[in-house]
Amino acid sequence: MITKNELKKIRALGQKKYRDRYREFLAEGDKIIKEVIESNFHISAIYATSLWLDKNKNKIPAGCCNIISLTQSELKSISQQTTPNQVLAVIKMPEGKELPNPQNQLIIITDNIQDPGNLGTIIRTADWFGINNIVCSEDTVELYNPKVIQATMGSFCRVAIYYTNIIDYLRLHKNKVPVYGSFLSGKNALEHNFQQNAVVVVGNESQGISAETEKFVTHKINIPKFGKGHNLKPDSLNASVAAAIMMAIIRSKG
Amino acid sequence: MITKNELKKIRALGQKKYRDRYREFLAEGDKIIKEVIESNFHISAIYATSLWLDKNKNKIPAGCCNIISLTQSELKSISQQTTPNQVLAVIKMPEGKELPNPQNQLIIITDNIQDPGNLGTIIRTADWFGINNIVCSEDTVELYNPKVIQATMGSFCRVAIYYTNIIDYLRLHKNKVPVYGSFLSGKNALEHNFQQNAVVVVGNESQGISAETEKFVTHKINIPKFGKGHNLKPDSLNASVAAAIMMAIIRSKG
Repeated sequence: MITKNELKKIRALGQKKYRDRYREFLAEGDKIIKEVIESNFHISAIYATSLWLDKNKNKIPAGCCNIISLTQSELKSISQQTTPNQVLAVIKMPEGKELPNPQNQLIIITDNIQDPGNLGTIIRTADWFGINNIVCSEDTVELYNPKVIQATMGSFCRVAIYYTNIIDYLRLHKNKVPVYGSFLSGKNALEHNFQQNAVVVVGNESQGISAETEKFVTHKINIPKFGKGHNLKPDSLNASVAAAIMMAIIRSKG
Repeated sequence: MITKNELKKIRALGQKKYRDRYREFLAEGDKIIKEVIESNFHISAIYATSLWLDKNKNKIPAGCCNIISLTQSELKSISQQTTPNQVLAVIKMPEGKELPNPQNQLIIITDNIQDPGNLGTIIRTADWFGINNIVCSEDTVELYNPKVIQATMGSFCRVAIYYTNIIDYLRLHKNKVPVYGSFLSGKNALEHNFQQNAVVVVGNESQGISAETEKFVTHKINIPKFGKGHNLKPDSLNASVAAAIMMAIIRSKG
């Protein structure tokens, strides 16, 4: 059974305003919730069908959180997803941490990524390629947007995400590490050697890397097209796809 | 001005049932519609703001199609998108063509891809890497779903998409070309050489490549993780990201 107040709060957590107020966010689905349970995140409450709870109760540490059994239709009424899930959790936002240092690791910077699916997918791909920290511009879509969280498929539990003024961040690390960025006019990434202590900038879906950020890019590179010769179309890749191919090339040519 | 009948039809084209009945589909947005105009697709009607029409009327061939000027709010009422567009087109589905032959090109097969954004992104990425034909299993999401069309960003104009029984297709080409498929247990794709006349199978978002399709995969490969050692998490990449990295590796190691 879900109380009216709980229902109201969960629905409110679909909106950024209330996430900021409560300092909590939502995640859904068997795979993601299991990852959250294994992580350092603090869970406030788990809402699940009795079927899911019967199967997974032993995985939830004692005293972890409120556990509320709901019917499938009650869960549907609180879900942000179009496909029904067996489980939803309310999770506390972690405290802010110090910004990561690119002098000892590969860092991704997102420059105004707007699509929640793209940010979530970039986080998931970063996790695959052992990238532990992503620094987002303040105008990048919010991490705790339910669509971002779902697209990470749980990788937000392992990859730390920071929001900051990326120009200040880039200025701080200027001349210390290479800053890679993808440009149509850049050099062929396949013929490039990459350092692993570095920054990779991922640009906005339609505008790419902003002019201000571009000034800090030390190596302009390009993912080569194939077999099109002088053909100008297509002129772009999806932002999360371009980021993924860059990560794969950088990790393979380090 | 839009008539009630037009409004009804456009709304109906949001559903597969009516797309199949009318043999027409929708596309929206400046970039995509310009690509459709330049392509071999037959356009039935273009609905656009007078602003868009003033700018682009000279790009529309004479007698191309009905051109209807609408207000921004009329356009919003027929749009399938959340962000408002300046232009929407009703486009005729092309006639079916003969299935492509992998003996003279690289072919992608999708095995039950369900997410429209993933299929659209795979088409867009294939276009970038000069892959002109994609063969979809009959249970793959429909190409003319508005979310697929939008995610292609116009690449559906250059990449031909076929729906067929992929088992029959794979059987027909058995032992003639390599069939590449991604498996966690596969060999490191970075240490593999690839033929360019071949098939690449892209599996379902959660189940991967089906057991029946797997029997036809001649080379099981894997996109290597980085720096995680024995860490089992994350256990997967987004399907369109995995497909993109495979395309990039195959094209770079041909």
